Amino acid sequence: MKLVCKKSDLISGINIVMKAVSSKTTMSILECILIDATEGEIKMTANDMELGIETKVLGEIIEAGSIAIDAKIFSEIVRKLPDNDVLIEVNDETKANITCENAKFNILVKSAEDFSYLPVIEKNNKITISQFSLKEVIRQTSFAINDAEKNKLLTGELFEVHGNKLKVVALDKFRIAIRNIELKEEYGDFKVLVPGKSLNEISKILNGGVDDDVNIYFTNNHILFEFDDTIVVSRLIEATNYFDTDKMISNDYKTKITINKKEMADCIDRATLLIKEGDKKPVFLTIKDTEMELSINTFIGSMDESIPISKEGSDIMISFNPKFLIDILKVLDQEQVSIFFTNPKAPCFIRDEENSYIYIVLPVVQ
Amino acid sequence: MKLVCKKSDLISGINIVMKAVSSKTTMSILECILIDATEGEIKMTANDMELGIETKVLGEIIEAGSIAIDAKIFSEIVRKLPDNDVLIEVNDETKANITCENAKFNILVKSAEDFSYLPVIEKNNKITISQFSLKEVIRQTSFAINDAEKNKLLTGELFEVHGNKLKVVALDKFRIAIRNIELKEEYGDFKVLVPGKSLNEISKILNGGVDDDVNIYFTNNHILFEFDDTIVVSRLIEATNYFDTDKMISNDYKTKITINKKEMADCIDRATLLIKEGDKKPVFLTIKDTEMELSINTFIGSMDESIPISKEGSDIMISFNPKFLIDILKVLDQEQVSIFFTNPKAPCFIRDEENSYIYIVLPVVQ
Repeated sequence: MKLVCKKSDLISGINIVMKAVSSKTTMSILECILIDATEGEIKMTANDMELGIETKVLGEIIEAGSIAIDAKIFSEIVRKLPDNDVLIEVNDETKANITCENAKFNILVKSAEDFSYLPVIEKNNKITISQFSLKEVIRQTSFAINDAEKNKLLTGELFEVHGNKLKVVALDKFRIAIRNIELKEEYGDFKVLVPGKSLNEISKILNGGVDDDVNIYFTNNHILFEFDDTIVVSRLIEATNYFDTDKMISNDYKTKITINKKEMADCIDRATLLIKEGDKKPVFLTIKDTEMELSINTFIGSMDESIPISKEGSDIMISFNPKFLIDILKVLDQEQVSIFFTNPKAPCFIRDEENSYIYIVLPVVQ
Repeated sequence: MKLVCKKSDLISGINIVMKAVSSKTTMSILECILIDATEGEIKMTANDMELGIETKVLGEIIEAGSIAIDAKIFSEIVRKLPDNDVLIEVNDETKANITCENAKFNILVKSAEDFSYLPVIEKNNKITISQFSLKEVIRQTSFAINDAEKNKLLTGELFEVHGNKLKVVALDKFRIAIRNIELKEEYGDFKVLVPGKSLNEISKILNGGVDDDVNIYFTNNHILFEFDDTIVVSRLIEATNYFDTDKMISNDYKTKITINKKEMADCIDRATLLIKEGDKKPVFLTIKDTEMELSINTFIGSMDESIPISKEGSDIMISFNPKFLIDILKVLDQEQVSIFFTNPKAPCFIRDEENSYIYIVLPVVQ
């Protein structure tokens, strides 16, 4: 194999596939990037067996071939090279020469045959969505996922397609995040649970363009995202017993407030300064006609602050884990948000009129 | 005590004195900032018993007084307040109200009487130097200090004044960093060893202005730096048995090269990619008439690269710990540097014609 690529093109490719390089593994082949130039184009692939990414890299193939190279070392070397053309040359499948200007590296590599190629995915069930929308729904829901959860259902995010509607759900034991997106076409009905980790990595690769599409393909065991010159394949989590979130949503309320999102977020942010790590102190909301008083009292001291609101319905006092409110306020784009309460022991809803987003948070009951 | 300060002025003051707040201590008073408004101006002080910093803060004193407040909590609260006037009010010496716009904190504080004030320093022996020069000499020498050394002499930096000359020396077992500065006036002869940690903290506070002076006062046990609205006091290390570095400096050499500093630094930087942490692999320099070849060979692979040089004297092959060369090349401002060699077992010298800087590095002898 003999290739010439610009340093910048190599780095773009490395940055994309690195997201699927295993960092904790005893199998050194999973720490490698596959460089494949056997079929007239240069492709880089990484695959940690849960998430796999393949992307095309610009460059000239002087001699076809393929090798697997340690991702960390390859990435570090390329980054430190002068900003110029890089020659990658492999003669005997055990060592690669990487040459740029006067610098010449000689690095141990592995045979491409040892590499786990990406699974072949049937492309029957598809939806198309903009990169912008996909990046947004991940950002606005994935905070509710806990990778370390024993209950696998809580480590993933539900993607449910029904006609021209996509519903994305993430939840833990105390809160639910739901985004509803209208699709441009009618599709079938599919429902899969995607590992949160995979979605977070994909989100980092998406350029987020409003006019750049992502094709998403669904199978029983995998989901495939296709965009730009990149494909991403993730294993799925078994979703048969997933929660029926429709049953948890209610449009009834006794109190509705509308509040400036940034003022509320800044205020809770200040309140949490008084909470030592590991301490579980709630913030108290006292909602009156034109203002919400937020207060907290801990071993360090106390704080209170009032924020102007507009209110419908009755006054209420209710307590929350401040992190749960902050997480939601951080990801919303709206300047004003509406919050719906029923009673101090019932969950509150943060949602818009169209239910394009719905967040449900359980209060702290004392 | 009752004060009003702008948020930004409080933050400036906090940022300065925080450098002397103890982070690992069982004495909670050492984690505090003293706010003193007893003498017509507002002063903040922190003192970890090795390093003490006092600075003036702009603001209005409505009622004189002083308190000690937990530095971390105070700093975090002020940072998160709206960008406006902040009222600090203490009524009974146990609690402070911190109010800004609608936000009101109430925080436990300590009595100022428990605080360790800065020692009083005699101002007999003084030199004056620009903030720029002081910041530069610290940056260009302190890398050779090892805070964790058992031999206390190696944890400090020698400041030696002789007439109108200041010599600053830092060293470890393998290298010496020396900076010689010409002062504007004639002073006496003093010689003190300043803890490296203190110098690094001072360096962060200095604005580095060429036209802003620092007055440095020397006593037997302390050094005091006075600049802007700030004073910094550090304990000294006993320096009686300090090394006689003059004896280690030699102007003899067999080989002198002049090389582009950035090219050499980048090249060594690339070579070190092949060294795994904890592995002690040297770089080999092969110096010929017009080029220096730098090579390395490790378990990961090998690299070689040649860099153009101009040379006087004989060819030489010599090995170094790459970190020791990089540390020096990183802090030098010159585009071209001269390196002097005698033989493969003797230290090399990196210095300019005027000896304004002299770096001595031991080679790796195989």
